Formats: sequence, C-alpha cells, structure tokens
Amino acid sequence: MYKAPLKDLRFVMHNLLGDDQLAGLPGLEEYSPDFTDSVLEEAGKFAEEVLQPINRVGDTRGAKWTAEGVVMPPEFKDAYAQFAAGGWAQLRASPEHGGQGAPTMLGTAVEELWASANLAFKLCPMLSQSAVEAIERCGTPQQKETYLPKMISGEWTGTMVLTEPQAGSDLAAIRTRAVREGDHYRLHGSKIFITYGDHDLTSNTIHLVLGRVEGAPAGVKGISLFIVPKVLVKADGSLGERNDVRCVSIEHKLGIHGSPTCVLSFGDKQGAVAYLVGEENRGLEYMFIMMNAARLSVGLEGYALAERSYQHALAYARTRVQGRPGGKSGPAEGKPLPIAYHQDIKRMLLTMKGYADAARAIALYAALQLDLGRRHTDESMRAAAQSRGDLLIPIVKGWSTEMGLLATSLGVQIHGGMGFIEETGAAQYYRDVRITTIYEGTTGIQAGDLIGRKVGRDAGAAMNALIADMLSDLDSLKGTPIGAAAIDAVRKLREATQDLLDAHRRGPEQPQAVAVPYLLLCGFAIGGWLMAKSDDLTRKNVTNDAEFNRSKQQIARAYVEHILPQAQAYAAVVKSGSTSIVDADPALF
Amino acid sequence: MYKAPLKDLRFVMHNLLGDDQLAGLPGLEEYSPDFTDSVLEEAGKFAEEVLQPINRVGDTRGAKWTAEGVVMPPEFKDAYAQFAAGGWAQLRASPEHGGQGAPTMLGTAVEELWASANLAFKLCPMLSQSAVEAIERCGTPQQKETYLPKMISGEWTGTMVLTEPQAGSDLAAIRTRAVREGDHYRLHGSKIFITYGDHDLTSNTIHLVLGRVEGAPAGVKGISLFIVPKVLVKADGSLGERNDVRCVSIEHKLGIHGSPTCVLSFGDKQGAVAYLVGEENRGLEYMFIMMNAARLSVGLEGYALAERSYQHALAYARTRVQGRPGGKSGPAEGKPLPIAYHQDIKRMLLTMKGYADAARAIALYAALQLDLGRRHTDESMRAAAQSRGDLLIPIVKGWSTEMGLLATSLGVQIHGGMGFIEETGAAQYYRDVRITTIYEGTTGIQAGDLIGRKVGRDAGAAMNALIADMLSDLDSLKGTPIGAAAIDAVRKLREATQDLLDAHRRGPEQPQAVAVPYLLLCGFAIGGWLMAKSDDLTRKNVTNDAEFNRSKQQIARAYVEHILPQAQAYAAVVKSGSTSIVDADPALF
Repeated sequence: MYKAPLKDLRFVMHNLLGDDQLAGLPGLEEYSPDFTDSVLEEAGKFAEEVLQPINRVGDTRGAKWTAEGVVMPPEFKDAYAQFAAGGWAQLRASPEHGGQGAPTMLGTAVEELWASANLAFKLCPMLSQSAVEAIERCGTPQQKETYLPKMISGEWTGTMVLTEPQAGSDLAAIRTRAVREGDHYRLHGSKIFITYGDHDLTSNTIHLVLGRVEGAPAGVKGISLFIVPKVLVKADGSLGERNDVRCVSIEHKLGIHGSPTCVLSFGDKQGAVAYLVGEENRGLEYMFIMMNAARLSVGLEGYALAERSYQHALAYARTRVQGRPGGKSGPAEGKPLPIAYHQDIKRMLLTMKGYADAARAIALYAALQLDLGRRHTDESMRAAAQSRGDLLIPIVKGWSTEMGLLATSLGVQIHGGMGFIEETGAAQYYRDVRITTIYEGTTGIQAGDLIGRKVGRDAGAAMNALIADMLSDLDSLKGTPIGAAAIDAVRKLREATQDLLDAHRRGPEQPQAVAVPYLLLCGFAIGGWLMAKSDDLTRKNVTNDAEFNRSKQQIARAYVEHILPQAQAYAAVVKSGSTSIVDADPALF
Repeated sequence: MYKAPLKDLRFVMHNLLGDDQLAGLPGLEEYSPDFTDSVLEEAGKFAEEVLQPINRVGDTRGAKWTAEGVVMPPEFKDAYAQFAAGGWAQLRASPEHGGQGAPTMLGTAVEELWASANLAFKLCPMLSQSAVEAIERCGTPQQKETYLPKMISGEWTGTMVLTEPQAGSDLAAIRTRAVREGDHYRLHGSKIFITYGDHDLTSNTIHLVLGRVEGAPAGVKGISLFIVPKVLVKADGSLGERNDVRCVSIEHKLGIHGSPTCVLSFGDKQGAVAYLVGEENRGLEYMFIMMNAARLSVGLEGYALAERSYQHALAYARTRVQGRPGGKSGPAEGKPLPIAYHQDIKRMLLTMKGYADAARAIALYAALQLDLGRRHTDESMRAAAQSRGDLLIPIVKGWSTEMGLLATSLGVQIHGGMGFIEETGAAQYYRDVRITTIYEGTTGIQAGDLIGRKVGRDAGAAMNALIADMLSDLDSLKGTPIGAAAIDAVRKLREATQDLLDAHRRGPEQPQAVAVPYLLLCGFAIGGWLMAKSDDLTRKNVTNDAEFNRSKQQIARAYVEHILPQAQAYAAVVKSGSTSIVDADPALF
C-alpha cells in the first residue's frame, strides 16, 4: 500500500530548500509552508485512497478504442470526476481564470503523489496543465475566456499534439497542413503518440496542435501552434458540433496501459477547425515555453516510481521470511528472518531510496528556481534563478528518469521470482517507468539541450555558478566522510565541465558523444550535494524527529558509498570517452 | 531479423580462446574447430528460420492452462518436433545413451543462438538437458536405460522441480514429503515456478523433484532427489497410467510468455510415484552438480538477449531518418540522416554490443574451463581448470544477466517512442530478460556463492591465479591505451579481492554487503582483459578479415572508454561500501 511520503516532502521543501522564501513574493502573497502542508496532506489522501486503488485496473483493463472514441475504465471516470470536483486541476493555474496559482514547487510535490499512485492517470491532468499554460501565456483574451475556465475547473481536458510518424525528436519535419479560412484555419494531418488524445472522461478536449500554414518557411521556423477543440464551442460557450478530428487507433504499449496513446487524424472530411495561437510560425517557440514545466513533470515521474517501487519492495522484504543472513544482525538468532535483514536486500533497498531522495531534492530545487525566476522582486535574482532552473531541467528529466529505471528494476529483483509475476505489482512500475526516459524528449535530447543551450551557449557560466555555490555550501562539511565525498564529486563535475567546454571548441561531435554521461554525472554530483546537506541538517536535528533523522542519515550514507562512486565513472567517460564514439563508423556496426 | 553471430562465435572460440586444445581429449577424439563451425552453421539456420519467427507468437499467444494440461501454441509444437528430429536435444548428452557428447563450450555457443532467437522456447531443452545430466551422473543403470534414450532423443522432456512457496532461495525450507513404498516412494507436496512443468510438446515429461523422506533430518541435509514421470513407464518402456501430478495453474508473467511456469501439485490422490536418485538425503548435492551447467546456460541468456536487442536496435537506427547530427560525420551534408549517425545513438549501440561481446567471451572461457576440468589428461590441469570454471560461473550468471538488463533497456531507448510500442518487438527483450537475474539463483545468490564458496573458502587462491594470468597476458599490451586500461581494472580487482578477504576476517556481513558490487567488478575487469586481448588479435589480423577486425576494434575501444570505468566505481564501493549497509537498521527503512 502506497503511503504518500509527506515527511520527506516537508523536510525537503521546508528544511532543505527553504520554501518560506517564496512567501510574500508577488502572486504568492498567501503562500506559506503551512499552506503547503495542508495541500500535501489532502493530496496524499487523494493519492492513497482514490488513485492508488485503481492503478492496477488501469494496467490490466486499460483504455479501449472504439469507433465512437476511446472508452476509459469506469473507475478512471469516477476518479477523474473526484479529481476535478476536489479542485486539483486548478492547483497551478493562474487565479485570473479560476486557478489557485500555487508555486511550481508545490505543484511538483503534489504531482509526485499522483505519479506514484497512478502514473497512467496522472498524465491526463499533466497534459491539460501544459495546454492551459500554453493558452495562458500565448492565447488571445477571447481564447482565454473561451477555454481556460473549463480547462482549469477540469470540465474539459487539454492535450499537446506534436509528433508525426516522420517527426519525433525532429519537429522540423512536421507536415500537418493548415489552410487559412476567415478567422480560423482548416487543419489536415496525422499525429501519433498523443497522450489522452481521446477519452470519455470529459465532454470536450482542447488539442494544442503543431502544424504548418500553407506557404510557411521550411523547418522549425514555419511551425505554428493551433487550438483544435474536439467539440466546437459556440459563442455562448456551449458545445456545438464535433470537429473534424478523430482517434484512429490507440497503441498497445509496454506500460501505462490506463493512459490512451492515440493516433489522431485531423481533417479527413472538410478539415479540422483550428484557431491560431499567437502569431504564425512561432509555434515552436511557444511550445518551448511550456517545455520546462512538462519536462520537470516527467522528471518527477522517475522518482515517483522509484519511491512507489521502493515502498512495495520494502513491504515485501519485511514480510518474506527466507533463509538467514550470515553474521549477527537481526533478532531471533538462528531462525530464518525477513529478507529485509539480508545485507544484499538492505543494499538494494537503500540504493532505491537513495535514488528517490536525491532525485526528489534536485527536482524540487529546480522547481524552486523556476518560481524564484518568475516571482522574485529583484531582477538579477530572477535572472539567476531562471537560468539555474533552465540548467537543471534537463538534468531532472534525464537523471531522475534514468534512476527510475534502475530503482524499479531493483524493486523487481528484491521480490525474486515473485517480482516476475504480474499480480505482484512490482513489474508494473518497471514497465510503466520505461517511457519516462523517452517522452517529452529522450535522455539523449535532454543531454543535447544541457550541453548545447544550457552549458555551451553561456560558456558554462550557469553551471559554474551552481558548482561554486555547491562547493561553498559544502565547505563546512569537508571534515565529514559524506561532505568530503560530495565535494570530490562536485569537483569532478567542475573538471568535466571544463573538459566539455574544451571539446566544444573542437566542434559539436565530441561533446555530443559524452553528453549523456555528462548529464548523469551532473545528477550524481548535485544529488551528492543535496544528500550531504540533508545529512547535515538531520544531525542538527532541524526536524525534531530522531527516528526520521536516523533514517535519512542511513540513506545519505548509502547514497555516498553506493551511488556516488558513479560520478567517478562518468567523469572518466566524459574525460576520455568521446573519440571511441566519434571515430566509430556506423557501417561497421 | 536476427542473424546468428557466427563470425563472432568463431572468433571467440577459435582465435581468442583456442578451442583446438579440446581436440583429442578423452571423449572429444572427434572434436575439431571445423566440426564446431558446421554445427554452428546448422544451429544458426535453425535459430533464424525456425525459432525466431515464432518468438512473438510465444509472447502474444503464450502457453495456456486447461484442466487437461498446458496447451502450447501449435507453432511451438511444430518447432519442437523439428528440434528433436534435427537431433538438437542430443548435442551435449553422453554418447552412451544416444547423445553426441559435444563439449560444454560448443553447447554454450549453440544455446546462445536458441536464446537469442526465442528465449521462451530455449528453456524447454535447457531444463531437459539439466534433467538428463542429473540422471546421467546420479541415476541407476536401470533409470538411465528407462529415461535417457527418450529424453536425449527429445521424445520426452525433463524438468527441475525445486521451489516451494516458502522455499525459494532457501531450499532448506523444502517440505514436499516422500513416503517409502517398496521399491519406490509416494510424493506429496506443492511446487511453484516450474519451467515447462507441463506442456503438450511431448508424450511424457520426467520431473526431477526435491523432497524430504519421512524422518529425514531437518534442513538441507534431509533433502532427496526423485524421478517423477508425468506418465508412468511400463517395464517394456511403453507409457502406462498418468502419475498423480498435475499442473494446477500457470503464472501470468512479465515476459517469456511462451514458457509455461507451472504450479505443480504432487500427490492429491494416492501420492505421486517417485523413484529415488542416488542415496537419500543427498539431493541437494546432486542438484549442485548440475547447477554449474544450468547457471552457465542462464548466464548466456543475458548476452543472447543483449545481442538480439542490439541487432534489432541497429536495424532500426539504420533506417530511421530523423534530424541531423551536428558536425561533419556521415554522408549527404545538410540532409537528415539515419539515427545510426547520431553520436548518442552510436554510443548506445556500441555499449550494447560491448556488453554482449565481453559477456560472450567470459562465458565461453568459463565453458572451456569446465571442459578442460572434465577432460584434460593432466590431473593438476583438470583441477585448476575446474576451480577456475567454478569461480567464473557465478560471474557469468550474475554479470552477464545484469548487463543484459542494461543492454535491452538501451535497445528500447534507441527506438524512442516506438520502443514502448509492443509491436516493435524491442520491449519483449526488455521484459523477457528480466527473469534472467532471478532464476537459477538471483544475482545476490550468485554473489554470495562467489565471495563465499569461490573466493572465501580457498582464501582467494583461484581468483588470484586468474588475476595473475590476466596480468601476465596483458603485460605485452601495457603500452596501448586499451591494454593499460584493462591492466588498471584487473589491478583494481586484485585490490578489491584483498579488501574482501580482509573483510571476511571481520565476519560474514561486511563482504555480503558488497558481494554484488564485487561480482560486477569481476565481470567488468575480466571483460576488459578479454576485450583487450581480442583487440590485440584483430590488430595482428588473425582473422584475415579487415572489416571484422575494424568492427571489433571499435567495440573494444568503446568497451574500454564507456563500460570499463564502471570497474573504478565498483572497486570504490567494495572498498568502502560495507558499513553503510551493515550498520543500517531495517526498522528505519
């Protein structure tokens, strides 16, 4: 049974990162850590009581395609209705249109709970939130008035419609055609991999679609963003005719079976009615505005499933009695013991939790930077926080999801043979998490963004500023084993950053060949910093909870001894790993 | 389309490891590298043409339980009939009862092809082979005569029946009861996780079952091994009545759906007729005799799926055109290119193949040691080879399957969104391979065997002998980057071995806490040795195939730059990673 890790979240937000600095900022006048606590408590209940129990229903029964549209399991319809009624769709949306305007940091904390409890469900509000953000930031006043209130209340959902068969990571290849027709456009094209592209949870779905206006320039500079409602909205706000868009099929996937992944066909008949968002040919730019939020939200899925998988494995390890570990540890000398007392099981459990805790801390730190970047009263502070947030996003997305793969695999392993049996449930996390390193930009795409736009473009300024802050923060801990190990890892990151910048000067190929290893190194090292800091805080008893402190200290130590050595390995790869890749001839593979 | 990697196998067996040293040994008088080549060629055809095409059938339709027994897909029945008719079930069995007596090394090479083409199918002959070996080594002449000819011809299959709900890794907890009744016993008990425990591929299945004779001592010293035929065999060899054993259900699993994993109930009525193998209470000992072969065979599954997944991803990467990698590499300046030209895709492909090649080399080297240990004419050579083979088995089983997890995950990743779609096929390898680190003893069990029975018991003698041989072998390569890196990794293994032995003296817990990291270090370092050696041989052009040489050199370099740095990380974990685990209190998890 999943329990929302509220203590962990409170510790990270209040003690480790200090969310009180958000209180009173413009737009966050009402914010307080106490408010966060009450929201988290309610969200935790909803996750545990409503979303968790139907996670396996989503997996086993899943979404079903019919000629009339995608049919969701009734349990999902019911849960969605409760979700909307509870106001959860509003949390992060702007108050102008009925949202609660919660900071990104709190939104991130809450979304972890949805993702842990039921990843397939979580994707629906996540995509809606992205669509809301697109309209909030780039829509006309009339578009905002028409769509936002019902999307923010949860009465309607939204989607992001980007991918085409020939245009996956490379959006320049998009072909969907838009033809001007008075105040709107007619859209024709086929889109794939559209999450919640069709469903029966709500009466309408607002698609945000990338397409190309006839006569637009080739490549990314000719892409526009359109609003395409599934059902057209009349002037009085009521629903009119069905638009010319339909779900042709849904994918049969490795995981997240409860989330329909749709092939959408636009304009089979007269063309789908589409409304331009912002200006023509600036669609990709608008899309990138939302990308940070979406990538952060997928990043958290990595540790959300690590946490869920950890809790599942721990519960099993505490009850499965099997053999006796050597040595003296544990009660009842000589008798078989729960496997939680076996050293190798302890190693796996601590490693899983180490991944989850470090990734959560990094993600919430990144979210805090985005909030400060948007809200801080000081312009230079805003700029610094925004650039740090931007720097961290690909690391959160890439590292956290890659660690999610490792953690959920350990979760299966701890169950032994039972882990391979679907009814046990451990395998579902292993399957579900597998998409997280792929959608919203693969780990390779994140790493390219990191070394190009985030580290290369400013010649390492934002990264070196972060490194300097981490080292100064860790200076007082240099006498402790954990502090020393964290400092060592951050220094390796500093050297690797220099290596990478040097390689940049020799052209783009060499850094590309070690971009993912560099991204992973970033995650391990930044995680080391935050785990060392968290260890230090528990030693100073900031929580006033001795048991929690000791628990966190165990995990920090395991992180440093069992996970952080990976920083060495990846630093070595960054240092000398590019030529073996660049020189390799694909014809000889 | 899977292509059997015959060039790779020939290179490893003939050039890298020198299988000609087997020729002429007692029992291998007929053996020659040419014989191996012709067997591999035929096996490759069978794997490609018969087993590969039904791999997805096994996955999607799978085995079905009915009250009358498990029904296999008709395609599997047909393939099995061809398998038996082709004499493949005989390959490794002893000639006395119709086998071909092929060396373990050749058997290992051939089984890789079965596993790559169709893992679910491969498990059936693998389990039969284990059962044959048990009867060959421990059965009475009459048992041999009754069962072996038909099992070796493939007319009947065999199983290994060990696990019970409360007795997984801990076989001491076995409860299945055997009651003496004249010249046989009556067996009562429930067994789980029995691979091919029931099926309709053949007219009979011979179960080898662990049970406890009434009044036997508690624990592992009271376990006996029994032959329990599904259908009783009359004195004239014809089939008689059904025995009192039935398949109660089959598991719904993450992968290998074509392989029925059965719950077997023995003795619901009058008790299943069971024949003792060897002496009472020595069952576990007999089981361990076969364990090496079975663990080697599961180990090869790790790289078999890495290889298959690599081939699948490579084919996709060569045809999927998407974006343009930066820099100058590749043809057709300025145009989109197949993703095989993107540096990060090249990195993933080379990493996958590096895992497969290194693991294959280690496994075949281990198999060669087992052959020499059994056949060498010099007794001290036999003893040395046997102890080296014994040492390597847990490393092959543990490391190769763990690398299989990583490789198949990269295989999904290279496909991007398509990797998550089941029809693509990449996800099946990712699911299928997940059992390999679990069955026939988890990675943790292998690591415990390695540090206990294999390294601890002889105070590191066998391991240090291997290390000395590797270092002396690599000495001539110390001037090359690859040689130097391999030497460095082997030295780290030498230090870690010493660290481990020191920790042993402080009790069993500390080494247990770093047993898996130590096992992984062994794999990376031994792999480094064999990849460096292989690189050197291709530079000396032993193959007379310039393209093959360059291909292997690319992979060796990528292994050293991208995979071998893991040896550093795990050496650091072994050095300082035990206390964080041992000291951790499971109550605080």
